Amino acid sequence: MQGVEATAHVAAHELAAMRRALALAERGRGSTSPNPIVGCVVLDAAGRVVGEGFHLRAGGPHAEVVALAAAGPAARGGTLVVTLEPCRHVGRTGPCVAEIRRAGIRRVVYAVADPTAAGGGGAELAAAGLDVVGGVLAAEAAAANRAWLHRVATGRPFVTWKYAATLDGRVAAADGSSRWITSDEARRDVHLLRAQSDAIVIGTGTALADDPALTVRVDDAAPDLTQPLRVVVGRRDLPPGARLRDDTAPTVQLRKHDPAAVLARLADRGVLSVLLEGGPTLAAAFLRARLVDRIVAYVAPILLGSGPPLVADLGIATLAAGQRWRIDEVTRIGPDLRLTLAPVSADATAAAAPGATVTPAAVGVA
Amino acid sequence: MQGVEATAHVAAHELAAMRRALALAERGRGSTSPNPIVGCVVLDAAGRVVGEGFHLRAGGPHAEVVALAAAGPAARGGTLVVTLEPCRHVGRTGPCVAEIRRAGIRRVVYAVADPTAAGGGGAELAAAGLDVVGGVLAAEAAAANRAWLHRVATGRPFVTWKYAATLDGRVAAADGSSRWITSDEARRDVHLLRAQSDAIVIGTGTALADDPALTVRVDDAAPDLTQPLRVVVGRRDLPPGARLRDDTAPTVQLRKHDPAAVLARLADRGVLSVLLEGGPTLAAAFLRARLVDRIVAYVAPILLGSGPPLVADLGIATLAAGQRWRIDEVTRIGPDLRLTLAPVSADATAAAAPGATVTPAAVGVA
Ligand SMILES: NC(=O)c1ccc[n+]([C@@H]2O[C@H](COP(=O)([O-])OP(=O)(O)OC[C@H]3O[C@@H](n4cnc5c(N)ncnc54)[C@H](OP(=O)(O)O)[C@@H]3O)[C@@H](O)[C@H]2O)c1
Ligand SMILES: NC(=O)c1ccc[n+]([C@@H]2O[C@H](COP(=O)([O-])OP(=O)(O)OC[C@H]3O[C@@H](n4cnc5c(N)ncnc54)[C@H](OP(=O)(O)O)[C@@H]3O)[C@@H](O)[C@H]2O)c1
Repeated sequence: MQGVEATAHVAAHELAAMRRALALAERGRGSTSPNPIVGCVVLDAAGRVVGEGFHLRAGGPHAEVVALAAAGPAARGGTLVVTLEPCRHVGRTGPCVAEIRRAGIRRVVYAVADPTAAGGGGAELAAAGLDVVGGVLAAEAAAANRAWLHRVATGRPFVTWKYAATLDGRVAAADGSSRWITSDEARRDVHLLRAQSDAIVIGTGTALADDPALTVRVDDAAPDLTQPLRVVVGRRDLPPGARLRDDTAPTVQLRKHDPAAVLARLADRGVLSVLLEGGPTLAAAFLRARLVDRIVAYVAPILLGSGPPLVADLGIATLAAGQRWRIDEVTRIGPDLRLTLAPVSADATAAAAPGATVTPAAVGVA
Repeated sequence: MQGVEATAHVAAHELAAMRRALALAERGRGSTSPNPIVGCVVLDAAGRVVGEGFHLRAGGPHAEVVALAAAGPAARGGTLVVTLEPCRHVGRTGPCVAEIRRAGIRRVVYAVADPTAAGGGGAELAAAGLDVVGGVLAAEAAAANRAWLHRVATGRPFVTWKYAATLDGRVAAADGSSRWITSDEARRDVHLLRAQSDAIVIGTGTALADDPALTVRVDDAAPDLTQPLRVVVGRRDLPPGARLRDDTAPTVQLRKHDPAAVLARLADRGVLSVLLEGGPTLAAAFLRARLVDRIVAYVAPILLGSGPPLVADLGIATLAAGQRWRIDEVTRIGPDLRLTLAPVSADATAAAAPGATVTPAAVGVA
């Protein structure tokens, strides 16, 4: 823990700078994968903000480099506040540790420790005589990079299963009609979920039944909005006129049934976050494999009494064997309800709980 | 509207007396059916509380009579505050109108107008020269007597359908195990619901599968707690050792399938409020007949993927034909969720919305 102090030793203006860095990091959301989002603020020796930066996309400069460039000579003797421990590896860009030393920074405050194999540069900076403080607002920062941390910890993308169902758990009526179960408001919310995902995954069953577009359609979308990858899982061909064949967003079909293999292929493509949009067969396959890290459920106050259930057979016979989840959030959206749930069982992914991966106690640098 | 003023003309101490009367009325809950619950406060000429009373059981004295007796001569020139318009009919007890006049009361403030065919005594009191004000806290008072008002308006008991289901809408696992889907906390809540009901109704399917006791078991139960009537609907016989055959509470079996006929029989027995506890077949029959006035749903964050759905076939083929409800309340109970829903469709019972039956505008006395 040499050179690394506890959060309690952080000044109020440094804490404010970290909040600002967290906000800056968000500007990269949607375009940085497979990299994390990172924000950085440089303070001069008097504690004034003299530089800001964030990571925009893989291959582009790191947040620290952008902020130090903005600060220029004013960084000398100052403090660098960053949402992720500065890197020491030489990746597509030079290591931030060298840039920080070159700029004459005296103190480094970071939120989340770098959990990658290469490791972060906190210890190296401390050994070079800088003050290094880790774990500041670590829970917020870890939640913001939940998918990336999950990927580092497990090798897999973070999977959110989203469904829209009636009160009695139907995702369509007996005749197959499913548009629209939920309200406009709930559907708008789904587009926000999509905008935060690298890939949207459905089975051929849904593709053939609904011919969905699976694109992000939000009112105030950034002009450079990156559309998530559209992924169809299953062996049947899509008809030539299928919407998923248009060029509004990239699309891949994976002609396999194993959810772990599907996620491995997506991880290879740099996907960190997956939005699983069904249907019941594919959702059941992911649930059986315990590869769902979060559920976002939209429940409409409608009773149908028949129609496909939200999840197909899970191979569970008794109540005691049921998959248990934890309700993390309940929100009313128009006439509907949105529930957010996290897995509960022992083998469930620990990273599903925000902040569980990286706690202040875990960010010490050896 | 002769002699009946608007709520705005009520003094603060009269409003306080009405709140007290509403609280007094609650002491009769569970024992007054087929009568409403009623509370009464008598103020002397100076506005001081000199008598209180509530209606305890059918055949017993009305709240006004109790409160006037407690007040004695102090009632002369005073005000009577009561949650329901005083009666003018000669029922099992004498009419309250006569008692009020005999006591020398000068002013009467009531909440809900008497909607029965016999009519209330407001106009008669006004004609005799008393000040009469109706509609004070009428929405609260109507909600408190929702079942009774529903019964007067429709001739039927007020039906609350309660179910406990998993996130995916299963009321039992594939092997039939259903104990316990929800948490201790949720089950305790169900006993409070039962304590507020005159009758608990299940089908023979549930009786045979679960052998339930259907009694109210609450920690701080009043020693004179009236157990609700236990009602089994269906033609099959219960086995000799069935819990429903014990003497902890009265039980009837109705060997019929028509929900309207079931409710008519229960209404004849003085039942105002019915708690329908399933299962899926009987619930579907009530829902198809549009005889459910409220749903109380306990949802446990469990996925099963198979098992009986919470409601059987409703004869609905398309999404557009689905039964729509309105979510009135969402409460977290332990790890579970409780939803309270009201019917939305045009033919749904108007009385299901608290206060909808009796609004201040509707309490004028001709
Ligand atoms: N309301 C909602 O939230 C929602 C969301 C999605 C869908 N839906 C509804 O769900 C219905 C479609 O249901 P669905 O279950 O057929 O859709 P699905 O789960 O999207 O697709 C099922 C197909 O996926 C392929 N597949 C991929 N991995 C599999 C695996 N591990 N095991 C088995 N099959 C696998 C199979 O197709 P191949 O034979 O081609 O390999 C299978 O037939 C539609 O009515 C749709 O409207 C509703
Ligand atoms: N989790 C919960 O909230 C909950 C609540 C209740 C039950 N359950 C579960 O539900 C399962 C029992 O389901 P169920 O559907 O058999 O129970 P049910 O609805 O209680 O009983 C069905 C039976 O009721 C009779 N019945 C009365 N009116 C009817 C009508 N209009 N149409 C058709 N039948 C009518 C029929 O019996 P006859 O042939 O005798 O006439 C029918 O077989 C059990 O596994 C139980 O654990 C769960």
